[in-house]
Amino acid sequence: MTGSANSHRPLTPTDRLSSQIRFLVETEKLKTVLRRTSPINAARRENTAEHSWTLTLMAVVLAEHANQPLDLLRVLRMLLVHDLVEIDAGDTFRYDTSAHATKADREARAAERIFGLLPEPQATELRELWQEFEARTSAEATFANSLDRLMPLLQNSHNGGGSWLEHGVTREQALESNRHIGEGSLALWDYAQTLLAQASQRKLFHPSP
Amino acid sequence: MTGSANSHRPLTPTDRLSSQIRFLVETEKLKTVLRRTSPINAARRENTAEHSWTLTLMAVVLAEHANQPLDLLRVLRMLLVHDLVEIDAGDTFRYDTSAHATKADREARAAERIFGLLPEPQATELRELWQEFEARTSAEATFANSLDRLMPLLQNSHNGGGSWLEHGVTREQALESNRHIGEGSLALWDYAQTLLAQASQRKLFHPSP
Repeated sequence: MTGSANSHRPLTPTDRLSSQIRFLVETEKLKTVLRRTSPINAARRENTAEHSWTLTLMAVVLAEHANQPLDLLRVLRMLLVHDLVEIDAGDTFRYDTSAHATKADREARAAERIFGLLPEPQATELRELWQEFEARTSAEATFANSLDRLMPLLQNSHNGGGSWLEHGVTREQALESNRHIGEGSLALWDYAQTLLAQASQRKLFHPSP
Repeated sequence: MTGSANSHRPLTPTDRLSSQIRFLVETEKLKTVLRRTSPINAARRENTAEHSWTLTLMAVVLAEHANQPLDLLRVLRMLLVHDLVEIDAGDTFRYDTSAHATKADREARAAERIFGLLPEPQATELRELWQEFEARTSAEATFANSLDRLMPLLQNSHNGGGSWLEHGVTREQALESNRHIGEGSLALWDYAQTLLAQASQRKLFHPSP
């Protein structure tokens, strides 16, 4: 904290810009956080920054399939920041139940630190967008979550099973874990179910016990 | 082209979704297009997908510094697709004058093919956003271009000179090539000039002839 911040002098545009640049430099670290999935037809795991680009682009392209009318700008802002907490908290694999027990705590601390680099009210606005994404309490958040679930299905089904086979995921687990897609978009959930059925026929899942 | 498209039957939502998914699968290739710059503090070159995420996030965070009022949603949609043509045309290094001679042609053909995967009117809308970015004819496009120039400066100055030293770029070339930043944001151009002056003092440029 600088003296000027403590004395509540309003930040100048230059002060604000310095904080914003510090935040942006920090977000470069998201490019080193690796997910379990690979880009389609790539032999490497993808990082969370490029994943975030994909979801934001998906929102632009697929918005018409949402169950409810959307504030698209809100969806895009939400998706751009929805995984920034992974800089501190890492990527938590959807099917890893023990890691999920501590996920909320780890991510809340990360959000405090990372969004806290920004000047107000921007820090609070973006942290609240992240919370909204996690809580799935709005049309925008449920649709954003639908995209976040759909993309790994597309990637794994194009990549010969990908993280499903690598981590022993059964068709039933994939169906159960991705049901939320329908909350944001019934059209995308229909599509996803067809994709999962085809993947199952092609033996891209771990066999059910 | 399918028979149904030729007969001008309106596309069903399911037809549209299939085309949109084909487009999104195609865009995964942007994750394999490498740029000359590296993410801050990373030893690898960055790909154009993660670069596109950074610029879009920058627009959210830095919009207040634009010279003119912006339609932020338009800026975000523009930045998400501004480099998709690189899937076919590759990344053209800013300081490579011979590659720049053929850039417009290569990219126009790429735009035709890649955006053409989408249903109308989406294909035309997104292709026109890309053209607007290239032409720098609107407040949104000039600001988006400012961000596209600013980020490599930040990356190179944090990475000990990065692509400047690797490719023999002088301080004068960097100044000249990045002047466009001021068209979108005088505040960001001020900041960039300070950054370039500091980088020059730290000998992060190729010596001037």
